[in-house]
Amino acid sequence: MNKKSIQDHYPDELNHCYGCGLFNEHGLHLKSYWDGDKAVANFLPRPYHMAVPGYVYGGLIASIIDCHGIGTAVAEAYRIKHREMGTEPLLIYVTASLQVTYLRPTPLGVPLELRGSVTEVKGRKIVVDVTVTVEGEVSAKGEVVAVQMPESMMFKKSVNRK
Amino acid sequence: MNKKSIQDHYPDELNHCYGCGLFNEHGLHLKSYWDGDKAVANFLPRPYHMAVPGYVYGGLIASIIDCHGIGTAVAEAYRIKHREMGTEPLLIYVTASLQVTYLRPTPLGVPLELRGSVTEVKGRKIVVDVTVTVEGEVSAKGEVVAVQMPESMMFKKSVNRK
Repeated sequence: MNKKSIQDHYPDELNHCYGCGLFNEHGLHLKSYWDGDKAVANFLPRPYHMAVPGYVYGGLIASIIDCHGIGTAVAEAYRIKHREMGTEPLLIYVTASLQVTYLRPTPLGVPLELRGSVTEVKGRKIVVDVTVTVEGEVSAKGEVVAVQMPESMMFKKSVNRK
Repeated sequence: MNKKSIQDHYPDELNHCYGCGLFNEHGLHLKSYWDGDKAVANFLPRPYHMAVPGYVYGGLIASIIDCHGIGTAVAEAYRIKHREMGTEPLLIYVTASLQVTYLRPTPLGVPLELRGSVTEVKGRKIVVDVTVTVEGEVSAKGEVVAVQMPESMMFKKSVNRK
């Protein structure tokens, strides 16, 4: 896909997320895109992202639901203000809560499709429902409650940032 | 700590979990131990497990809550039957649902302590509450609903298992 992902619009200095940051060299590099009124992402778990042999690790599923939910929330925040993604003042969201239901084991070795739908926008909060589909079946679903990031969190240095 | 962790008792053929498997060479190797009637685990996130610089990635927090909750459930399942951990017939649990509330940003570069408490045991289900404490403050809390693993899931080969 040639078009820019939602995460490609994140400001460089905050684009280090392990799940979806462009500049995290160890990270998962999840990329989310608008598809009509939903956001979609595709992700192929690595062979070592296993729970038990043959099945995807639940923590990995939670992680990509989290990032895709946040990406959807950020894109929605810009969209409802009729603003270009990534323009200042920045609209950045963090996760207040994450809920994941594992409906069936997710087989390892095949791509996962995530679809995010905004279900609520209220003040600084945006709620996103996410489904994880594998081989045509929804194997997990999640809810991400995203809140606009406090300014104080934006530019702190890690004590062991590389 | 010299004593064996809960995960050290998992059967070798299922001990490949990305979060806590002994034999996952890319994994996080979380280790949980009984401490009275709670289970405790300590984990130092890697520098690249970041959300934004200075703070721990929420997906990593969800992942270690998941593994610690499952470890606590497995240990409890053996304990309430007065059986030695790891003995057959195996008692293995998987995550049915995972809920994480992020109470405050979790600083990166310092160890996290997880404490798990069993709150419900009913049939094949065990519910575990987990807190994540950093520098003396609880930064996140989670609930893991664990269910006994179906036999069919135990020994499937991955299509791309290494």
